[in-house]
Amino acid sequence: MERIVECVPNFSEGRDARLVARLVEAVESVNDAVVLSTHVDPDHNRSVITFVAPPETIVEAAVRVVARAAELIDLRPHAGQHPRMGACDVLPFIPVRGVSVEECVALAQCAGERIWRELQIPVYFYESAARVPERENLADVRRGGFELLREQIATVPERAPDVGEARLHPTAGAVIVGVRPLLIAYNVTLKTNDLSIARRIARAVRGRDGGLLHLKALGFELESRGVVQVSMNLTSYEQTNLHHAFEAVRREAKKLGVEVIASEVVGLVPQNALFAAAAHFLQLENYSPDIVLENRIAAALERKK
Amino acid sequence: MERIVECVPNFSEGRDARLVARLVEAVESVNDAVVLSTHVDPDHNRSVITFVAPPETIVEAAVRVVARAAELIDLRPHAGQHPRMGACDVLPFIPVRGVSVEECVALAQCAGERIWRELQIPVYFYESAARVPERENLADVRRGGFELLREQIATVPERAPDVGEARLHPTAGAVIVGVRPLLIAYNVTLKTNDLSIARRIARAVRGRDGGLLHLKALGFELESRGVVQVSMNLTSYEQTNLHHAFEAVRREAKKLGVEVIASEVVGLVPQNALFAAAAHFLQLENYSPDIVLENRIAAALERKK
Repeated sequence: MERIVECVPNFSEGRDARLVARLVEAVESVNDAVVLSTHVDPDHNRSVITFVAPPETIVEAAVRVVARAAELIDLRPHAGQHPRMGACDVLPFIPVRGVSVEECVALAQCAGERIWRELQIPVYFYESAARVPERENLADVRRGGFELLREQIATVPERAPDVGEARLHPTAGAVIVGVRPLLIAYNVTLKTNDLSIARRIARAVRGRDGGLLHLKALGFELESRGVVQVSMNLTSYEQTNLHHAFEAVRREAKKLGVEVIASEVVGLVPQNALFAAAAHFLQLENYSPDIVLENRIAAALERKK
Repeated sequence: MERIVECVPNFSEGRDARLVARLVEAVESVNDAVVLSTHVDPDHNRSVITFVAPPETIVEAAVRVVARAAELIDLRPHAGQHPRMGACDVLPFIPVRGVSVEECVALAQCAGERIWRELQIPVYFYESAARVPERENLADVRRGGFELLREQIATVPERAPDVGEARLHPTAGAVIVGVRPLLIAYNVTLKTNDLSIARRIARAVRGRDGGLLHLKALGFELESRGVVQVSMNLTSYEQTNLHHAFEAVRREAKKLGVEVIASEVVGLVPQNALFAAAAHFLQLENYSPDIVLENRIAAALERKK
């Protein structure tokens, strides 16, 4: 798979594991679409499927799983703390490799049009796919959930869907389709139990307060281990990568006389983020993805096809 | 390709590019076998093809290219400085990923048996595939080349082949089949033009003189740039990796008051070497190849098959 798009649909069902398995089947019924992880949360009565596919087939897989969710999930008796307004509630597309944000927006729009046309479920677009600034923030789109939207969709003009008529699907509600960046969740652990130090460092390194542009950071305590962590999200690792985050934290920690013990990636990390980190620390002057044996093999296999 | 073997045959023809292209075709006629690079050396009248394949098909690709070389190259009129004794002169197998040295020795033996049986070319085994210690060193096996071996093969018992009768193929000679480790060629550049410093550091870091076990090192001058380099071969990167070499050189350089300017990989580097280097420098406590997104995708695709 040369070009990769990730899709992370959230569903309003987190108690019936067999139902969730049927959602996974719908995704994997599509060529080249593979599920990387499934997270089922009974407390919030919600589940999240992470899958990838090339841009050529990701929309088909997304539409099939939204259709399967509409067939299996009835939102009317659904209960759970998490705000939601659809059987498939949120459908974000994430550019992973060889695909631009703009291409993903086009894929999201294509998915949205098909969801309305084929399933009669109205669609809202959020984040990079938003058509109006008021819908960039997911929480704003979802405000009041299924029940409030059912009252307002036809009568409050600013709550009309981006695609489809101003009426909810009776059992499946609406789908919020978007494009968001790939996040790397990355924590650096400090040799202290003083939470204020982690918080000071988080403020110093994060973009919001003048630090690294594509970095979000918070300080946390790990009580069981008696240490604190700077817990970060890298929202654009091509610009602000693991090594930038690590070195910024280490520099600020040093100023405060505190040592970095370790770091950890939460979830998955794209290989290019690790390659770039290795190249940085090794001062590799001729680094390019072309020097990686496996990349060369993949390119040769592609050529041979 | 989950499991990868590399094969780097050397041929006694480096002037006829169309002939070399036909050798490449023979390799690529096999499923999943791909050529990564071709090096044609007119001065030595010799060429080197680097290809990879899974263990299931690498022997077939190797035998086909040896057969094609026997068909196209006549060693009798061949001239060139480089010692050689076969049309396909040397045929090393290299474990790259998911394959042990022992498996590669079995593949080399299988290739050797087929080369004799199908092509009537006698076979010698060298390095890890050697059956006797006297044949571990390639130069010892090849001593005197085609012409001397032609005189001695039937009369000097210690020059008899490992597989096949004691007579050379009239035009294709013999093939020396072996197994050797994957090498990473890695140079670290120092901010000085004093060659003696590079040499001192090379001595301090290399295995032969008590340094890092799987590291060979020499000092070189880069006259055009006015700097020197510690030029290294990593013969077992799972044990002695880029970051070990880099940090050892940097430490020794520091002792001598010299700065490291940069480093470079010559040729290709396996992705796991870069992942391990990144994990080392980032102090990633939860690193495993499983946290790499692309590895997870490959495993999911494999599972789905």
